[in-house]
Amino acid sequence: MSSAATGAQMVSALIAAGFILALVAVVPLALARPDIHRFKWEVEYKFWSPDCLENSVMSINGRFPGPTIRAKAGDIIHVDLTNKLSTEGVVIHWHGIRQVGTPWADGTASISQCPIRPGESFAYRFLVDKPGTYFYHGHYGMQRSAGLYGALIVDVADGRSEPFHYDGEFDLLLSDWWHKSVHEQELGLSSVPFRWINEPNSLLINGRGQYGCSLAAGTCKFNGTEQCSPQVLRVFPQKTYRLRIASTTALSSLSVAVANHMMTVVEADGNYVEPFDVQNLYIYSGESYSVLIKTDQDPTKNYWISAGVVGRKPNTTQALTLLNYVSVHAAELPASAPPATPRWDDYDSMRAFAEKIRALPHYSYAPPPSRAHHGIALLNTQNKYNGQTKWAINNVSLSLPATPYLGSLRYNLKDAFDATPPPEGFPTDYDIMVPASNTECTVNNGIYLLKLHTTVDVVLQNANSLSANTSEVHPWHLHGHDFWVLGYGDGKFVKGVSDRKFNLKNPPLRNTVLIFPYGWTVLRFVADNPGAWAFHCHIEPHLHMGMGVVLAEGMDHVRGIPNEALECGLTANAKVLMDTKRG
Amino acid sequence: MSSAATGAQMVSALIAAGFILALVAVVPLALARPDIHRFKWEVEYKFWSPDCLENSVMSINGRFPGPTIRAKAGDIIHVDLTNKLSTEGVVIHWHGIRQVGTPWADGTASISQCPIRPGESFAYRFLVDKPGTYFYHGHYGMQRSAGLYGALIVDVADGRSEPFHYDGEFDLLLSDWWHKSVHEQELGLSSVPFRWINEPNSLLINGRGQYGCSLAAGTCKFNGTEQCSPQVLRVFPQKTYRLRIASTTALSSLSVAVANHMMTVVEADGNYVEPFDVQNLYIYSGESYSVLIKTDQDPTKNYWISAGVVGRKPNTTQALTLLNYVSVHAAELPASAPPATPRWDDYDSMRAFAEKIRALPHYSYAPPPSRAHHGIALLNTQNKYNGQTKWAINNVSLSLPATPYLGSLRYNLKDAFDATPPPEGFPTDYDIMVPASNTECTVNNGIYLLKLHTTVDVVLQNANSLSANTSEVHPWHLHGHDFWVLGYGDGKFVKGVSDRKFNLKNPPLRNTVLIFPYGWTVLRFVADNPGAWAFHCHIEPHLHMGMGVVLAEGMDHVRGIPNEALECGLTANAKVLMDTKRG
Repeated sequence: MSSAATGAQMVSALIAAGFILALVAVVPLALARPDIHRFKWEVEYKFWSPDCLENSVMSINGRFPGPTIRAKAGDIIHVDLTNKLSTEGVVIHWHGIRQVGTPWADGTASISQCPIRPGESFAYRFLVDKPGTYFYHGHYGMQRSAGLYGALIVDVADGRSEPFHYDGEFDLLLSDWWHKSVHEQELGLSSVPFRWINEPNSLLINGRGQYGCSLAAGTCKFNGTEQCSPQVLRVFPQKTYRLRIASTTALSSLSVAVANHMMTVVEADGNYVEPFDVQNLYIYSGESYSVLIKTDQDPTKNYWISAGVVGRKPNTTQALTLLNYVSVHAAELPASAPPATPRWDDYDSMRAFAEKIRALPHYSYAPPPSRAHHGIALLNTQNKYNGQTKWAINNVSLSLPATPYLGSLRYNLKDAFDATPPPEGFPTDYDIMVPASNTECTVNNGIYLLKLHTTVDVVLQNANSLSANTSEVHPWHLHGHDFWVLGYGDGKFVKGVSDRKFNLKNPPLRNTVLIFPYGWTVLRFVADNPGAWAFHCHIEPHLHMGMGVVLAEGMDHVRGIPNEALECGLTANAKVLMDTKRG
Repeated sequence: MSSAATGAQMVSALIAAGFILALVAVVPLALARPDIHRFKWEVEYKFWSPDCLENSVMSINGRFPGPTIRAKAGDIIHVDLTNKLSTEGVVIHWHGIRQVGTPWADGTASISQCPIRPGESFAYRFLVDKPGTYFYHGHYGMQRSAGLYGALIVDVADGRSEPFHYDGEFDLLLSDWWHKSVHEQELGLSSVPFRWINEPNSLLINGRGQYGCSLAAGTCKFNGTEQCSPQVLRVFPQKTYRLRIASTTALSSLSVAVANHMMTVVEADGNYVEPFDVQNLYIYSGESYSVLIKTDQDPTKNYWISAGVVGRKPNTTQALTLLNYVSVHAAELPASAPPATPRWDDYDSMRAFAEKIRALPHYSYAPPPSRAHHGIALLNTQNKYNGQTKWAINNVSLSLPATPYLGSLRYNLKDAFDATPPPEGFPTDYDIMVPASNTECTVNNGIYLLKLHTTVDVVLQNANSLSANTSEVHPWHLHGHDFWVLGYGDGKFVKGVSDRKFNLKNPPLRNTVLIFPYGWTVLRFVADNPGAWAFHCHIEPHLHMGMGVVLAEGMDHVRGIPNEALECGLTANAKVLMDTKRG
């Protein structure tokens, strides 16, 4: 990934320094002049009825979900975000965008920046260097669960083409929804005794679900203007459509299917994959896919599109919308039932799906380096801490500091976080098949410091949770990088044995990957992006309960952090800020 | 108030500079060595059942209400406040404490300091120079309504005595409580169409109320350990008790009575008053009183203490607790019914009560200066702004800026707020008896700049709200000062006529005063406290809707603002902070 990434780094560094025009003037042939997409966004609560029941949502410019951003690879996105909330801070994370050269625009509170205060603004300005299906969302407290999200679609650059053909496309942004406020959910999660958020009340497609009526049974009466009326996909027969499907669920793993229509998976997390056909798409929080469907079925009928919960015992109605052939009235119910969701605990099927995902040769980055310089094994366990229920990684539950790591690392503020890095492994005799014998964990904010340009392997090791015979799925998301998924396995990862089955030939590049119950997943990445980066379970309450780590690399190469990113904690300090100005 | 205030100012200025010990060493005879009361407080949400129905409250150190602070006049309070909330900022205002020399410790977001961010701390360190009954509460968004409050009691200095005798005392901190979250209340208030918070679900005494059962009817079953079981006042016969009664209600004006027992009012807002007897005490949000009761009734019985809503058409059950003579079981219900709340709109009675309040000679400050240097008339109207419902003062609805005035004034940051001061009066032909003909107001953050040491008169002029034949009560609270209440009147204040009935002989000193429907109230104060100070309706939703102004005086005398107070907005800026360090 060297030359592309280097180009991107150059661009970004220059963006940061505000030298775009100069750059274009100097090297007109090397780099096309990027389009700059400017947005002025205001975040505030709004009364809204995402699932036909009124509630309050976090809106952007008064809309839920937030506006879809659409750009071309090589463009610059510039969002001036103003916090219009009453008392809460806010940030927005651009999920899947690597922020090469702009680590302060990653939008992770306590890591890349201070939360934006009520009444204040922050400029997110970054390069979208890779075409693909992305999204954005809040990354402070559990504001993603409160509805702070939207789609971010990057088309191929002018003159380039996708490695597949399609005639039209639709975005499907999937989420889950609770009637209980996020504030109360958060409080329950940190209370003693612990109060779980339980299964969602509804699933939403593009922010629309139906609670208390059933589309399938025809009991929802819509005129189409309701905030919860489904967004129907109107299609012509005998065409190919690209469905861009992204999941920003707080909790739910989903299976998506289109009745009577096979789906061809062509993209995952902004990376092309070797096409493969499926009846249903498994998608976990933090993932995105493109699938192609051919509208080759009876054009005098409509067809259900369904999304249902897997990976947890479901208690939520499927989300539905219609694939509506143009000659049929959009209100006409399909003759056949919505595609059923597979058995929730059919992990074999989920694993088989995951293993079908392979990089598309030539259109993707080169294969991974053949070996890693460094290996980290991360044991995922559920724990207790002073009576609270936590998730911990190598027995450390993450509690984010008041000072963003990006600032404390850049300015070497030693008191800003725990100087001792968390363990890079776990006891070899740890029995992952039973609850921990000593359930108490530590709570900490130490981080993993990686050497710039080294190749790193991470073993994500799942285990039994606090209850016997229980191990959950966790989709892990890495900021600032894509990684190669080298392999999945059952039980405990055994070095020298488990690694023999690594796929080093065409492993997919992803930014999010699942660990299966009682299983392991290994990923490899190159620590080539100076900055501080979150790596965490994308299940919102799990992260809130400490299920994440922070990595940092090449911090001495970070220049130009805007003052506005560091006006809190120990970085809210004259000396540091003056230094920043010089930086 | 010259010599006392000057002494206090000296102490505070030196506290600020951290020279306490030096001061005490140098002038041991002039000033007794103050006791320093240190507290470490953490603010977080907790599940709690204030009225027997579980909800989430803002707690301090896990308790609701927050701990009672008790100190002696001349002592220093030092509270290290840590924000343990997830995404919300926080501040605490010390209601009734003038913060002479420490304007940054007044705890008003956007005025005296930046809100304390999650994970961060702020040191409130200030002198309590005057004995009396005070309280503290949140002053950001509507966090007071969320339960962020507690009592602050200042006893007379060693060797001094109160101007009345009592054998024991009780604190009664009154509040009102909603089952709907404050976040949703706030959202409704700023929504189009407007959604009013409606009347409270419960009234609380010391954070305890009963919803869904009736103490009076004996249908509440308590073992005494419940969070909502009433705090019984256990008394010996033939003694005198001081009840310290303070109201931190969000909305409700209250009438408090003790069955069969007359109350003698002796203190109001931390100032002694000429004692007078009442059957019921009218108390508005932001006020505090001390009353004496003599336990001279049949000691074989218990007696109800009741607090009920006046000033608005009530829809909330009275708050009750028991005056429990020691020989009677605390669970024994009184033979007679709780004291009835007066007719809610008996404004004559409320006005008569207000006019009974007179300063106690010799124990109080000198009478007010006989004339003011400066007069400001503030017309209170209900208005519209882009479809929102607002309250406005001289047609300006207050919207607080991101940069605290204390910082922007001190460092002359001209862009931090509107340079044009709001009007000092209103059109003489404004008809206060009908809704405004043009209901649209402006939204603004300009302020009133007062000349230091000048005497200022403020006419608070009430008017008709947006609905015909409606004018509400508003308790106005001034930060940083006490003021003399010169008089009340009906209709429109007419200069040269209305002022003839001013009481300049023994007007009470207060920090909060009511304006009656369609009436005016005039107060006088000396602008002798360098700083920026809120002056606003103490009804929480009214302030949230813009019903307040900001005053500032002597800003060039303010020195030593801690950096931590200014880490936001335009003051979060190296130059300013460096300057602060020199300051």
